[in-house]
Amino acid sequence: MYNHILNNIAKHISLDKEETDHFISFLKPRKVSRKELILQQGEICKYINFVDSGILRAYYPDKTGKQSTIMFAVTDWWITDMFCFIHQQPAMLTIEAIEESIILQLSKESLDNLYIRIPKFETFFRIIFQNAYIREQLRTIQNLSLPAEERYQIFRDKYPQVIRQITQKQIASYLGITPEFLSMIRANKHKK
Amino acid sequence: MYNHILNNIAKHISLDKEETDHFISFLKPRKVSRKELILQQGEICKYINFVDSGILRAYYPDKTGKQSTIMFAVTDWWITDMFCFIHQQPAMLTIEAIEESIILQLSKESLDNLYIRIPKFETFFRIIFQNAYIREQLRTIQNLSLPAEERYQIFRDKYPQVIRQITQKQIASYLGITPEFLSMIRANKHKK
Repeated sequence: MYNHILNNIAKHISLDKEETDHFISFLKPRKVSRKELILQQGEICKYINFVDSGILRAYYPDKTGKQSTIMFAVTDWWITDMFCFIHQQPAMLTIEAIEESIILQLSKESLDNLYIRIPKFETFFRIIFQNAYIREQLRTIQNLSLPAEERYQIFRDKYPQVIRQITQKQIASYLGITPEFLSMIRANKHKK
Repeated sequence: MYNHILNNIAKHISLDKEETDHFISFLKPRKVSRKELILQQGEICKYINFVDSGILRAYYPDKTGKQSTIMFAVTDWWITDMFCFIHQQPAMLTIEAIEESIILQLSKESLDNLYIRIPKFETFFRIIFQNAYIREQLRTIQNLSLPAEERYQIFRDKYPQVIRQITQKQIASYLGITPEFLSMIRANKHKK
């Protein structure tokens, strides 16, 4: 059950038996069906979630119902609405399971407790947030400087396991283009 | 000289006299003229920079010379090409001073040393990176979901001190729109 998350953590810090048990005692495992929501816009964002298996999608639903896809998370990724989780406020994002998934949830209270009891977790999450920031800075560079064709190619290379599970509309909304434009890009690729 | 940065740090951790001296010994102050580059695309990205005074701009120059503005940093902000700084690789971004500025530079080696000698800095940079990630996640939400008019308004509110110092072209490239479109938005605002 806890192999994936313990391997994820062992990449950056090493825990002894007691620390491992303490950490595991904070995790809430949850099995999520396809299309089930683990966070809904407007709810207090209580958890940061580790994906043990499956695929999740975080999106921003605007007033007209349009969904902008903010991120996907596959096995071994952490996902939440970070602003609302840190400030324990109503979520801006909705997070849904794209396929049946198993997640491990860590509450804000548990995380704060973890930082105090096992300060190595400061190092772990410093690296997790540093990498998340790097990923978003690269995405901003790509969004501002690359044409949609190249951004689609990067997305395909980065998330090969996601691309088969999600709709054209969800990919388009992640890339910030219309589904029609994405359809044109894909048609052109097949012609080449 | 070190008041701004010590206040910035005191928001999240508290250092004793010895720790403060140790931290300060790692900082390289640098005065930068208007339009001077503190990092150029292709150079190894050696430093993370704290802005003591002034304004900096990080941009991605593409092969055609087009500049995409990735971020601005004003007094009290940290700025670098994060991917290249962490991996000590040639920079993707160029960082220039928009007005005469004073920065305090911290090398990767010094930062790694700091984490070991004063582990409280793990907490400090965990919070700095967490906030940077939050800022980028919010920017992605806004970029994908809001019309350019509203994004311009948010930018004006967020960076009132920047807006007077930079060109229309630089704001447009930050918002991912053409200077002509920005000009139209500004003209419409004046009419209202």
